[in-house]
Amino acid sequence: MTEMKNKGILLVVSGPSGCGKGTVLSHLFSNDKSFALSVSLTTRQPRPGEIDGVHYGFVSREEFRKNIDAHNMLEYTEYCGNYYGTPENRVNELLEQGVNVVLEIETEGAMNVKRARPDAVLVMILPPSYTILEKRLRSRGTNSEEDIAKRLARAREELANLPEYHYCLVNEEGQSKKTADALRAIVVSEKSRICRNTGILEHFYK
Amino acid sequence: MTEMKNKGILLVVSGPSGCGKGTVLSHLFSNDKSFALSVSLTTRQPRPGEIDGVHYGFVSREEFRKNIDAHNMLEYTEYCGNYYGTPENRVNELLEQGVNVVLEIETEGAMNVKRARPDAVLVMILPPSYTILEKRLRSRGTNSEEDIAKRLARAREELANLPEYHYCLVNEEGQSKKTADALRAIVVSEKSRICRNTGILEHFYK
Repeated sequence: MTEMKNKGILLVVSGPSGCGKGTVLSHLFSNDKSFALSVSLTTRQPRPGEIDGVHYGFVSREEFRKNIDAHNMLEYTEYCGNYYGTPENRVNELLEQGVNVVLEIETEGAMNVKRARPDAVLVMILPPSYTILEKRLRSRGTNSEEDIAKRLARAREELANLPEYHYCLVNEEGQSKKTADALRAIVVSEKSRICRNTGILEHFYK
Repeated sequence: MTEMKNKGILLVVSGPSGCGKGTVLSHLFSNDKSFALSVSLTTRQPRPGEIDGVHYGFVSREEFRKNIDAHNMLEYTEYCGNYYGTPENRVNELLEQGVNVVLEIETEGAMNVKRARPDAVLVMILPPSYTILEKRLRSRGTNSEEDIAKRLARAREELANLPEYHYCLVNEEGQSKKTADALRAIVVSEKSRICRNTGILEHFYK
């Protein structure tokens, strides 16, 4: 009955800047080959230190357009004159290998993935409270007041999409490992859902 | 934001005789106070060694009827002239305390609970295959051929209700601990579902 858990889960993870999702995801990926971050394609130039195929797949505008025309972009956006997006063929390859693929994207992209892939599981990571989010952004020191205000406004926009998500996880202070464990639990649980195991009785009686 | 995970989950666990759910549940309850088995009420006489409030709550027919009339039975059935059922007030008390309450019941009772409590999570535990189920029942030695045939027919009946369940877990040979961990993952995951956290943004902005 091993076929039951063979395919990976497509996991969309969103959360406002300052929610700590970077740390949560690094816990998720550390020593766990069953999870992989989807590498986005982009047409922008690589910055110093960025590695092709690790931070992004760096492609020409022409190649990106070819992917769009071939309906291979699960979601994409244009920002400051450059394309950014998720190539579906690579995601599917990993899922078929049983790898759970994580897309770390903003709510707009998440909504596009939800429409295109009803099998995707959408998780929103929340900071404990708005007050704490504000404090976190301020404590970084590197952000100007204007920048903080912009990020907070953006957080409100992102969180307005919460009802469209399937799960929300509150990333309590110093608990990013626990939040990563909850993400793992969501994946284990989703793999056991009846709707993902429609052929199970056939297999049982075989 | 701790209120988010305060209430327990009502977990209905079913599975054909021979699927190993007894062992799975004993792993779930061992050293884990966050789970409790709901103790059924019955009007039958206690058997030697059975403790009131542990194996069953032993009550008179009159008292059981009073519970039915007060709409306090989440599900109940009459079998060989005796009543058996789940008292809802005790279940609610535990859920309010944050305890996850497990009802180990057959599919008929599970369907009644599902109708009465849309918040209940229904999990079916499956043996790895029909062939293995048959082998397990046979290897017990204590079962007659007639009894085995009866249990297998009953298993088919129970499994026909699988589409009504939310999750299914295949209890692989010697993996009952893993199956118990999957039950735990289902509970963690269910607690994070958006539909169970409708007030979360209000709390976030407070």
